[in-house]
Amino acid sequence: MTNNLHVCLSPALIPLYQVEDYIVVIIDIFRATSSICYGIDNGAEAIIPVSEVEECAAYREMGLAYLLAAERNGEVVPGFDFGNSPFSYTREKVSGKTVVLTTTNGTHALHLSRSAKKIVIGSFLNLTALSSWLKTQNDNILLVCAGWKNNFNLEDTIFAGAVIEQLKGRDFVLDDPAIAASDLYQLAKDDLSGYLAKTSHSERLKKLGIEKDIAFCLNVDITTSIPVLQGEKLIKLK
Amino acid sequence: MTNNLHVCLSPALIPLYQVEDYIVVIIDIFRATSSICYGIDNGAEAIIPVSEVEECAAYREMGLAYLLAAERNGEVVPGFDFGNSPFSYTREKVSGKTVVLTTTNGTHALHLSRSAKKIVIGSFLNLTALSSWLKTQNDNILLVCAGWKNNFNLEDTIFAGAVIEQLKGRDFVLDDPAIAASDLYQLAKDDLSGYLAKTSHSERLKKLGIEKDIAFCLNVDITTSIPVLQGEKLIKLK
Repeated sequence: MTNNLHVCLSPALIPLYQVEDYIVVIIDIFRATSSICYGIDNGAEAIIPVSEVEECAAYREMGLAYLLAAERNGEVVPGFDFGNSPFSYTREKVSGKTVVLTTTNGTHALHLSRSAKKIVIGSFLNLTALSSWLKTQNDNILLVCAGWKNNFNLEDTIFAGAVIEQLKGRDFVLDDPAIAASDLYQLAKDDLSGYLAKTSHSERLKKLGIEKDIAFCLNVDITTSIPVLQGEKLIKLK
Repeated sequence: MTNNLHVCLSPALIPLYQVEDYIVVIIDIFRATSSICYGIDNGAEAIIPVSEVEECAAYREMGLAYLLAAERNGEVVPGFDFGNSPFSYTREKVSGKTVVLTTTNGTHALHLSRSAKKIVIGSFLNLTALSSWLKTQNDNILLVCAGWKNNFNLEDTIFAGAVIEQLKGRDFVLDDPAIAASDLYQLAKDDLSGYLAKTSHSERLKKLGIEKDIAFCLNVDITTSIPVLQGEKLIKLK
């Protein structure tokens, strides 16, 4: 049987898919899923994605030695250890630790995909490791772009296209969003940062003074771990 | 002040826009908005878009000499005069007549955009006429893709890109969907039908035996009328 390789361009479109029929890859390039990939690769024991800032804060009350990370609109929420800058997820900072994380877009997309067969986390940092694993699964794949405030964004779509490129030659049926993502990736792949420099989100992040984060999130294949959701926690796929 | 030129990739994303801030262009290339442009250009007095098949049927009871058109899932609904094939909107058939029309995607997108400053109808048939008029408006423009069952499709997105191409040189701010639409159009423009032949929707329409409709809907600039919503009716913009 031929499997589907579909792309969901925004969390607002997730209800259009029978999520339970797919392995879902959550994509939030700037910056949540890049940081999650980096953190898990750097030995974080687990990263717990939660939807609300309040849920994140509630972990403080439990008296556990968790790191608490909260980002809204691209900035660290006051009172939290850090947000979703990848530079907060170095080995030194997260090795052996559990991080509780809430972000504007990425954790939202993840929670809407809960009924999937499996949920894994993708970013340019683990592109080839992720794609190689997907090739072994013989299943339907849904690449879910977290987007920006429920709308389409280019960086997540381009990454979906990068995964599709790696899966070429396998017998998948692509939907229209997958064809578009694949074609846009062809335009972008020789100069990812140049291509993405023209996007609205990139402008927005520049204003926040986090150009270094953006550049870091476009590093291809600097990690080999695949974060997978197990219960409430993202852990390293064995 | 710089105006926005935005693209809404699916009706499901319309709530993310402040529709009242824009002139909205409704796009449903295969086939509703192509047929509307053709019908209005061929002298139809008005085309009344309604959301539900039942609303369309209700006009029969009124005993008016309206033509009733209803399409669902690409097919004419049994009991109706016709659906949304452009070949039903020739001068011979619609000149001087009023058509009541309900379609799967196009009329849905239109009704969700009701609060816009103005609603006009776009298709390849009236591309240049529409774009020339938009250039004179000095206002925010939202290109709304009707898509397929609330999801993204390539043909509507490519057309949005064609409009953006025509508006180049004007000082508009593009959002990410507009950048994507524009880039995809660059890939498609030299061979629209070849590019779109790979889409899922094109496959679906082929199965319905309406390849001729598809080819017809990709005729560029064979009409000069711009349908505009006035009250409940689409009429020719004077």
